[in-house]
Amino acid sequence: MKGTVMYGPRDVRFEDRPAPKIIEPTDAIIKLSAACVCGSDLWPYRGIDKVTEPVPMGHEYAGIVEEVGSAVKHIKPGQFVVGSFFASDNTCEICKSGYHSSCVNRQPGAPTGAQADYARIPLADGTLVATPDLPSDDLIPSLLSASDVLGTGWFAADAAAVGPGKAVAVVGDGAVGLLGVLSARQMGAERIIAMSRNKNRQNLALEFGATDIVTERGDEGVAWIKELTNGLGAHSVIEAVGTQEAMMQSIRATRPGGHVGFVGVLHDVEIPGREFFFSHVHLHGGPAPVRRFLPELIDLIWNRKINPGKVFDMTLPLEQVAEGYRAMDERRAIKALLIP
Amino acid sequence: MKGTVMYGPRDVRFEDRPAPKIIEPTDAIIKLSAACVCGSDLWPYRGIDKVTEPVPMGHEYAGIVEEVGSAVKHIKPGQFVVGSFFASDNTCEICKSGYHSSCVNRQPGAPTGAQADYARIPLADGTLVATPDLPSDDLIPSLLSASDVLGTGWFAADAAAVGPGKAVAVVGDGAVGLLGVLSARQMGAERIIAMSRNKNRQNLALEFGATDIVTERGDEGVAWIKELTNGLGAHSVIEAVGTQEAMMQSIRATRPGGHVGFVGVLHDVEIPGREFFFSHVHLHGGPAPVRRFLPELIDLIWNRKINPGKVFDMTLPLEQVAEGYRAMDERRAIKALLIP
Repeated sequence: MKGTVMYGPRDVRFEDRPAPKIIEPTDAIIKLSAACVCGSDLWPYRGIDKVTEPVPMGHEYAGIVEEVGSAVKHIKPGQFVVGSFFASDNTCEICKSGYHSSCVNRQPGAPTGAQADYARIPLADGTLVATPDLPSDDLIPSLLSASDVLGTGWFAADAAAVGPGKAVAVVGDGAVGLLGVLSARQMGAERIIAMSRNKNRQNLALEFGATDIVTERGDEGVAWIKELTNGLGAHSVIEAVGTQEAMMQSIRATRPGGHVGFVGVLHDVEIPGREFFFSHVHLHGGPAPVRRFLPELIDLIWNRKINPGKVFDMTLPLEQVAEGYRAMDERRAIKALLIP
Repeated sequence: MKGTVMYGPRDVRFEDRPAPKIIEPTDAIIKLSAACVCGSDLWPYRGIDKVTEPVPMGHEYAGIVEEVGSAVKHIKPGQFVVGSFFASDNTCEICKSGYHSSCVNRQPGAPTGAQADYARIPLADGTLVATPDLPSDDLIPSLLSASDVLGTGWFAADAAAVGPGKAVAVVGDGAVGLLGVLSARQMGAERIIAMSRNKNRQNLALEFGATDIVTERGDEGVAWIKELTNGLGAHSVIEAVGTQEAMMQSIRATRPGGHVGFVGVLHDVEIPGREFFFSHVHLHGGPAPVRRFLPELIDLIWNRKINPGKVFDMTLPLEQVAEGYRAMDERRAIKALLIP
């Protein structure tokens, strides 16, 4: 089969790879129905995260089960399944509390890489959620989005304690931030302030339910959010970038007693204790426990209540994966869908 | 009248001071029934917080109302009242959400100093809570503790999401940490691990409801907490110190999805973003909104359900306030009660 391997910064190759095989009896092999490039793939692509050896790429996946290991009881060949970037047993105390991405048996969700024709998924029964039936083609982008960007935006909104009547600000206009807007809308937020300078992303934010767009950043952006929230700041802020500036903007834009939900992978971020102490903000985030939300998200997509697949504004054949990375790096695309 | 003034590190004087007067129509003047020295008073005492001019000291108070301003409607002369270290209006949106210590009209709770015979309290109707009747003398230490150390320990436990069935660890064996133990017991925690090396403090922690004592600190302390919690870490950790070591110990001792409630005033603390991201911990704290909890705490004390006044293990006449500072600085006393 063919798959995507990153050799170094800006060096992404689509090449022959060994077909994944069942290794553990709890594994499944799936045939990808679609694949995509994640914003977090850009950290190594840009050389910010070091690439020390060739790495198979892709951790978002949805597809048809080809084969399961002897210990897999619930997932069956032929099912359409969605999983997450961490494989989890769904039975440990941490999974039961909803933190699957810190499962005591946590493993990479698609260790062979999911920007490929096939992928091996560990802990299949705990990790994969099957759709009620085989989906029609138009649902596949949305189901794929549930695997990471939707699940992550949803977790961010949940971590930020979004709810009815609340004013929510979203820092970051990538796919996760935009789906944070969609999630906040689903959770009943009254006001949703999307921070973006990009016309296409602003439009999608509005389509997903944003009520206000703020183009300013840093202190000016904070001042605008306070202006829109009775001088107090937002009840809930979604941080979907992962930089020091975005984190401080998020904390400062939140009212005392409010919540920041952060899902941007933090790079060189230090949270200053004294300022945070007096901010009275709740801070929670990390790698999204997507598995917790998958049944609900699949249900919303299946019943066409939400259309998160709209974040894919570029579609390419999988073999052109390198162009997908380029387009996202240059912000020509919000998110590239790759069709095997 | 006489009151306490700090002139510089280790220079605390009990001296003649002008009697406080009503300045704003929302003020009240109270006659202190007892006063005390706070752990946070030790930061300037030790020279860690700079003292640039003589400062009247004391922010914990309980006493009898002498006089009220013309706009005070609910608080009456003759009542016994308890307030907090921040005065708050109890009517703004932030107070209504329970964050009185970030009230939009926040002011110091006892700007004239409460280690004194009398104190002026701003925003009396919003700040002060009256007891059902005049208390008997034996209740006064507990009522005074509600003003700060109990209210702060209670907020820490609340911020750490303590509840029935949970395993709680308490970092810090000062009055706030010990009353965090008492609070966790009241909130139904199953296991309460107090971290202390001091025999007297260990004994009081056990009396307040601790189930386990851990004497180790840092990584060893974290390892012990994991050992006691099925390898996962505590559900809830109360951070009642305010140093980098205590904060990192608290984050590392908390299981993924668990909560750290921090109330030690953070000094030179930086929370490393990447480690915090992958910890999956909820972090919340800051200056305790004691006013939120005062009605409930006064009720528990009035009905003798709790006896937080036990943290006062030294009683001195107010004029010996300097000895109270010395005893706490040298950890000869957990907390010094000062009788005017």
